[in-house]
Amino acid sequence: MDLKTMAEAEYDKCMEDLVDSDQHYQSLPKIVSELVSTCHGGHCHDHISPVPLPSRQAMVKIIDLCREVLFPGYFGDAPIDQVNLEYYLGQRMTRLYRLISNQISHAVRHDCFRYEKHCLECERLGREAGLRFLKSLPGLRTTLAKDIMAAFEGDPASGSVDEIIFSYPGQYAMTVYRLAHILRKMAIPILPRMMTEYAHSHTGIDIHPGAEIGESFFIDHGTGVVIGESTNIGHRVRIYQGVTLGALSLPPGSGRSMRNLKRHPTIEDDVIIYSGATILGGETVIGARSVIGGNVWLTESVPADTKVFLKTPELVYKGGAEPRGPEEES
Amino acid sequence: MDLKTMAEAEYDKCMEDLVDSDQHYQSLPKIVSELVSTCHGGHCHDHISPVPLPSRQAMVKIIDLCREVLFPGYFGDAPIDQVNLEYYLGQRMTRLYRLISNQISHAVRHDCFRYEKHCLECERLGREAGLRFLKSLPGLRTTLAKDIMAAFEGDPASGSVDEIIFSYPGQYAMTVYRLAHILRKMAIPILPRMMTEYAHSHTGIDIHPGAEIGESFFIDHGTGVVIGESTNIGHRVRIYQGVTLGALSLPPGSGRSMRNLKRHPTIEDDVIIYSGATILGGETVIGARSVIGGNVWLTESVPADTKVFLKTPELVYKGGAEPRGPEEES
Amino acid sequence: MDLKTMAEAEYDKCMEDLVDSDQHYQSLPKIVSELVSTCHGGHCHDHISPVPLPSRQAMVKIIDLCREVLFPGYFGDAPIDQVNLEYYLGQRMTRLYRLISNQISHAVRHDCFRYEKHCLECERLGREAGLRFLKSLPGLRTTLAKDIMAAFEGDPASGSVDEIIFSYPGQYAMTVYRLAHILRKMAIPILPRMMTEYAHSHTGIDIHPGAEIGESFFIDHGTGVVIGESTNIGHRVRIYQGVTLGALSLPPGSGRSMRNLKRHPTIEDDVIIYSGATILGGETVIGARSVIGGNVWLTESVPADTKVFLKTPELVYKGGAEPRGPEEES
Repeated sequence: MDLKTMAEAEYDKCMEDLVDSDQHYQSLPKIVSELVSTCHGGHCHDHISPVPLPSRQAMVKIIDLCREVLFPGYFGDAPIDQVNLEYYLGQRMTRLYRLISNQISHAVRHDCFRYEKHCLECERLGREAGLRFLKSLPGLRTTLAKDIMAAFEGDPASGSVDEIIFSYPGQYAMTVYRLAHILRKMAIPILPRMMTEYAHSHTGIDIHPGAEIGESFFIDHGTGVVIGESTNIGHRVRIYQGVTLGALSLPPGSGRSMRNLKRHPTIEDDVIIYSGATILGGETVIGARSVIGGNVWLTESVPADTKVFLKTPELVYKGGAEPRGPEEES
Repeated sequence: MDLKTMAEAEYDKCMEDLVDSDQHYQSLPKIVSELVSTCHGGHCHDHISPVPLPSRQAMVKIIDLCREVLFPGYFGDAPIDQVNLEYYLGQRMTRLYRLISNQISHAVRHDCFRYEKHCLECERLGREAGLRFLKSLPGLRTTLAKDIMAAFEGDPASGSVDEIIFSYPGQYAMTVYRLAHILRKMAIPILPRMMTEYAHSHTGIDIHPGAEIGESFFIDHGTGVVIGESTNIGHRVRIYQGVTLGALSLPPGSGRSMRNLKRHPTIEDDVIIYSGATILGGETVIGARSVIGGNVWLTESVPADTKVFLKTPELVYKGGAEPRGPEEES
Repeated sequence: MDLKTMAEAEYDKCMEDLVDSDQHYQSLPKIVSELVSTCHGGHCHDHISPVPLPSRQAMVKIIDLCREVLFPGYFGDAPIDQVNLEYYLGQRMTRLYRLISNQISHAVRHDCFRYEKHCLECERLGREAGLRFLKSLPGLRTTLAKDIMAAFEGDPASGSVDEIIFSYPGQYAMTVYRLAHILRKMAIPILPRMMTEYAHSHTGIDIHPGAEIGESFFIDHGTGVVIGESTNIGHRVRIYQGVTLGALSLPPGSGRSMRNLKRHPTIEDDVIIYSGATILGGETVIGARSVIGGNVWLTESVPADTKVFLKTPELVYKGGAEPRGPEEES
């Protein structure tokens, strides 16, 4: 009796018991059979294969380990001192190496499997790419420190640098984006987007791992920010909640043909974009040191050193509101 | 000495020890008494009753199990092959049946208890409704596959179908909404809204379980999307981040009298609504194949095959920004 | 052989083993050394010190315990009845006292350490402030009950008070804000912002703990709401998704000099602000009973009893959309 048969026997036994105690259980095997049959038609999505997919759980652990390594002493479970620092980092880097190599292997093998490319060396590729990823972490610490200083200088409400590291959603989203971007540049599939969408779910900030973002970038508040795949952003740029750097509308059905084109705007150095502004199109360039006002909608380029604001919209004021009736609850 | 007295004795002993070591602890019993007294005035919210409420933890487990069953091989902890597929699905469906039946019972009994309706058969109702819920899952797989294809066709940044299943927030929100909508149609209280608000917290996409949404629906980016209770949406509709399908403003105090009316718009087949657009009112109908531009604010119907855009807003450009002073940090 | 040397020996041994099995591991010690050296330059952020920082994990546990105490019977793992109520609350309040006192101590000591203030009594301060925090909880139950009634009266889609407590993001954000605001008024650093940003990540609602908000406040849907540090809000105010109560733009580099000024607006009693409206500036006052329409952008005060709406924007309609070609997918 092999493992499979044992499992099946256990399942059958379990079903029998249940049917005795609850007549509704009698219907379960039929529903399960129906589910199984939907896995054979090719119309639904399932991954019935011994080849493992990347794992969301492992991806989250990778992000957490990276944050412990990039900001030692902030997110781990133990205090760090000069004596145990190297041990602390070494232990985490070893775990990180194993996890990331493994997940990269799965991601790479996934593409081989799906698209019938030849790939005999997923394991080796995973270890090599994993190592390159780790090698980039010391330099990334400097880059992230510049993002943090940009937040501290740019936000009068920031109480301390530690408050930013602990709690600013923009800082979290940028840390994850910069990690994902490293993997994306190595052409690793699936994982980078899983990482930035995880950050998206925690922050409301949606940065595609393909975007290029310069140093000292600060996103204030952040909810609703969208930064598209082929966006280019210079140094010392600051943006606020609800800013979209997006693509122009597509004719129906053109989705696939637009892949790999420059569809999103270019933002040069020292630009500020206030909340709710929307800037669209691959040929749109916002020149250096320009300021884009709140709610502005732009599909054309703006020269350097320009301020663009909405013309003060006409508001309609109605004074002396009707007296409110007895149905009012407050 | 009964269980209650033992618990009290343990608590009293604990308090005594604490008081010895920290004088501030002396104040705790007084604060606890005050808290207890707030539970007797009827002004605060508590559920002091042997009748269990639905459990958030169980609801999350139900969503996770449904995703494992709807997309076998993507979210579970073990690889699946043709041999163990039926066992895998059967084992999860059995657990799902128990969990959902139980939670439905709690939800139904909750309403009996609160509103003094007669209900002697919550357990039976839970099992029957749980089974109906399970029976709908095979068909739901086909519906979700159409949503996924709509995302793959509509988004040039999508790398693969697997990327969408793993990481697209719109796909997550739609999966949870379609599950919650099934329960809502069975008139199960509380649980459906708990489910969609859980998805809302993960995605920024707020879909009321009462909304009716057709096939091949795609939400891109999604943060800030609101789809109200009595919205009707046709087939092959695509919407972007920040779109609100909402109700017109209410006179104060009219909240309760508006319940169960059609307060939200109708969107016909093949409509596209770009980011930030707001469409309000129960009599507003967006005709088939229409396109609503970004930031458009609509409270009136639009005929079929119409494109509605904001008139290009007047922008104010100011060139040659003042040279920036020495206080500048960058 | 002291503890440190043992840890190092273990690490070295671990490294040796790894190097044997995978040549890439040979590079790990070098990367770790590089990481260590980035911790000595003073350009990057790390907390290498025996002085503990506040812990995110403890902060989350504090929020959870507070919710169990503020809404007994809703979020705990056991049913409550009149018999075990006092024991239930007492046990949770004891744990809460320890956790919050400890975290306040860490937060206070953090500031001493960083800014070289004198502080010999962080432990005592933590216990005193922790107790004051606990003492405020019975009164907070009444305040939260008023927020919940405002939601029930203001939202026609609310099925029951329990649905609001369980699932409304606005209710969650307000509970956490009101807790954080108590700590902020005691001048506890870091912790209050960690708490509100945690709620922000779950709800998309970004309320600074420094804001002052009156009774019976209701946020509907909520995604994208921003309420700045020096905002004042009266009683019975209702706001919708995407509303920003923010600061006017700052000249570059002025961030730090603006700290502690009134930079955000004042909203008087009984005001309603619809979705997407933006109200900016420390001198902007929205008078009592006024209604601010959707997407309105205001940087000036509005007298009492006024309705402000966008002048109906000019829309461009194009009928008879071009027939769509054969590339269309649906």
